[in-house]
Amino acid sequence: MTEIRKVAVVGGGVIGGGWVARFAQNGLDVAVYDPDPQAERKLQGLMANAAHAFARLIPGARPAPGRVTFVASLAEAVADADLIQESAPERLDLKQALFAEIDRHARPDALVGSSTSGLLPTDLQARMSNPERLFVAHPFNPVYLVPLVELVAGEKTADATIERARTVYASLGMKPLKIRKEIDAFVGDRLLEALWREALWLVHDDIASVEEIDDVIRYSFGLRWAQMGIFQVYRIAGGEAGMRHFMAQFGPCLKWPWTKLMDVPDLTEALVDKISDQSDEQADGLSIRELERIRDDNLVAIMQALKASGREGWGAGELLKTYEASLTETAPVPEPLPVAYAVTVPADWADYNGHMTEHRYLQVFGEATDVLLARLGLDAAYLAGGHSFFTVETHIRHLAEGKVGDRLAVTTEILSADDKRLRLFHTMRRGETVVATGEHMLLHVDTASGKAVPAGADMAAAMAALAGASAARPRPDGAGRAIGDRR
Amino acid sequence: MTEIRKVAVVGGGVIGGGWVARFAQNGLDVAVYDPDPQAERKLQGLMANAAHAFARLIPGARPAPGRVTFVASLAEAVADADLIQESAPERLDLKQALFAEIDRHARPDALVGSSTSGLLPTDLQARMSNPERLFVAHPFNPVYLVPLVELVAGEKTADATIERARTVYASLGMKPLKIRKEIDAFVGDRLLEALWREALWLVHDDIASVEEIDDVIRYSFGLRWAQMGIFQVYRIAGGEAGMRHFMAQFGPCLKWPWTKLMDVPDLTEALVDKISDQSDEQADGLSIRELERIRDDNLVAIMQALKASGREGWGAGELLKTYEASLTETAPVPEPLPVAYAVTVPADWADYNGHMTEHRYLQVFGEATDVLLARLGLDAAYLAGGHSFFTVETHIRHLAEGKVGDRLAVTTEILSADDKRLRLFHTMRRGETVVATGEHMLLHVDTASGKAVPAGADMAAAMAALAGASAARPRPDGAGRAIGDRR
Repeated sequence: MTEIRKVAVVGGGVIGGGWVARFAQNGLDVAVYDPDPQAERKLQGLMANAAHAFARLIPGARPAPGRVTFVASLAEAVADADLIQESAPERLDLKQALFAEIDRHARPDALVGSSTSGLLPTDLQARMSNPERLFVAHPFNPVYLVPLVELVAGEKTADATIERARTVYASLGMKPLKIRKEIDAFVGDRLLEALWREALWLVHDDIASVEEIDDVIRYSFGLRWAQMGIFQVYRIAGGEAGMRHFMAQFGPCLKWPWTKLMDVPDLTEALVDKISDQSDEQADGLSIRELERIRDDNLVAIMQALKASGREGWGAGELLKTYEASLTETAPVPEPLPVAYAVTVPADWADYNGHMTEHRYLQVFGEATDVLLARLGLDAAYLAGGHSFFTVETHIRHLAEGKVGDRLAVTTEILSADDKRLRLFHTMRRGETVVATGEHMLLHVDTASGKAVPAGADMAAAMAALAGASAARPRPDGAGRAIGDRR
Repeated sequence: MTEIRKVAVVGGGVIGGGWVARFAQNGLDVAVYDPDPQAERKLQGLMANAAHAFARLIPGARPAPGRVTFVASLAEAVADADLIQESAPERLDLKQALFAEIDRHARPDALVGSSTSGLLPTDLQARMSNPERLFVAHPFNPVYLVPLVELVAGEKTADATIERARTVYASLGMKPLKIRKEIDAFVGDRLLEALWREALWLVHDDIASVEEIDDVIRYSFGLRWAQMGIFQVYRIAGGEAGMRHFMAQFGPCLKWPWTKLMDVPDLTEALVDKISDQSDEQADGLSIRELERIRDDNLVAIMQALKASGREGWGAGELLKTYEASLTETAPVPEPLPVAYAVTVPADWADYNGHMTEHRYLQVFGEATDVLLARLGLDAAYLAGGHSFFTVETHIRHLAEGKVGDRLAVTTEILSADDKRLRLFHTMRRGETVVATGEHMLLHVDTASGKAVPAGADMAAAMAALAGASAARPRPDGAGRAIGDRR
């Protein structure tokens, strides 16, 4: 992390709340000021989605989440903050008043960022005594997952402010991008607005429905743009002759009657009704919360897919990889694991290569699993009660050879647990050398039916306690791998 | 597949070539007509990229690729085709002449599709005697991966033609979408053109560079649009109040000075130079072929990620799942596998659950692996020569319980092999019931150093022969899984 330890968020709606989640998930304490009495309640749902998404985005070492506190006044929120992130409604007079007040109460060296989608920083800083610390940091929804943040300087913004802001947002796993000149709506929203106007016309003119337009986007250029932008895509389309050829070939289309952009569609009652009705139909009964969860899961999956691209990852995936590595570096050193089980390899375990036979590794892991299950309370009485654990899946990696006479010690972690499922990770070591790892998924079953059923209360509590203790440790290297995954 | 067996492609450039690849990968024979003497050579590179991508997109059952033949005349190409796909340059007079000639030589019931990006089907069919079979089928680059195809009817196009076209393109794994009214540039290119004009202005005005604009896209809304379009994304942004609320909140922005769209940028020499130079810099030394390969690998990874979304997959991933299932249904039934190894479970293999103990499964798989290795030529002499195979990774799935007295038979497939690596998949059955599967990665090693080294010539040939025989079979269910993957 950087110099930033404490953050104030002013305005806790969809954007402000997204910032709170990103800051807190990065281990920063956040003070939130929002005059809406419902703000705290609304933020809870968003924070839960963010925690779910962030845990899937960064399965490895993560900082412990920071504390989030709602405070009663703007002055209290900003008083000792290193970074103040304003996400109030888009009204210039309102924002100017807020910044004037922030100016009075914040430390002089605090960074003051505005999430505005389109107002000019020069206007926002007009009423400040220390305008040099004000800048625009415009994020994209959902803020806790989407990496881009546009940084825009006003006339009075100091260069050093932008440089500090760049470092801070980069340390949060974001992609800070400084816009070269201050213009209304910056870059992202200009591009979006252009396409949005055209989309509104297409619905207005009954060329396509809301759902059809969305399908056009997500079944074609949306798939391309998750990884390369419009210029790089067109460069490829130009073939070996490259961009100049593409411009020569498709330049003339610019003059063709391909858009209705010379006009702005009127948002009449009829057009708004049409779009709302078509949007309801498209949602097909899914609530906003459900759609949010689907969107977030898909964003995580897309970024993970791009992380696996090539050696270094690509685009947002490369960024994620770098970010993850930076978190591992700064993560606290975990406590040494307790040894669950140890064995000395007997002579009859050797194979024709002179190594411990393959299935003996699983025998040792199986016995380590039994030690753990006994610790959780699986005994003869529990078995007699008609319940047990069955292994349904195993993944073994051989990293060195075990030989006759070796003393092999196994440590065990719980990767995850709920009331039916237990996911274990064993590490087998000879001295400091990791010889093999075993990952195992177990189900708690009714032994009569062979079906998974919830564990009894004591067993479930013991599972939860061990899972909690393991969660504080970084995810072990190699967990979650499939055979043939690139390393 | 549908009624279509033979396809003619007229024009074999980037788009026509992409069609050739998609048709051929779907098992259709393709006749290509292109007057460019370089066309056949250029198509080879594209076909190689497509084969690579398609194999990763559909790791399971796939039809054997169709034959691709370059023919000397348009008449020959279209004479016995069920579907004719025209992808000639975007000039109306040229296309009209081509369709008049196609009209003379094609069977009357052939489907005639044009890949035009923007010309109206009513104009394209003007000089045809059988205009009812002409329609626009506008694809997106790369045609062999991107699913969308816009279907547009002209005034004289028969409804039945569009319905047949929809069935045909859907059977190729595509997303056919009928545009409700015929307009210039249809839907996709209208949206693209709107954003493209704005992007050109931003470069022209030095607000951002080509690379920065691309970064804005791919680090923000591009990630969203790979899965949901602009309307669904904005519905979520509106919160629980939904689309109507969003329109009320952001409607006013439409009137703000957020775009320069009222104007069309002039493609002056200076602007073209600027964009070309910035694009060269962005490519950072990667050739178009390299960029293509990266783009394709990322598209595959994104679609695979969306396939794993939820129970059914999402968007392009749901489509891929359905498509893959349809290919499995029509794939030739593979030969039954030879049983490599069988065992009757002895009494001392039972655990406290009364089942075969966990590590005994791996023992059986290990013994089946030894049978296979012996078949490949691993004997005492080979071991004495200082070479062997070491298992480096194992993945076991338990699907039913093995019990004392069970007769368990193992069949083995080679998922992949090169001169150093052998990836096996064992299936353990009791009668018809699959009890467990084991996936194993083995390395061919120098036993003295423990390092992987290439196998000897005979062994390598035996590995290649077995790998070839296994490649014809569909990939077994469960191969490549990591623990915790959703099913």
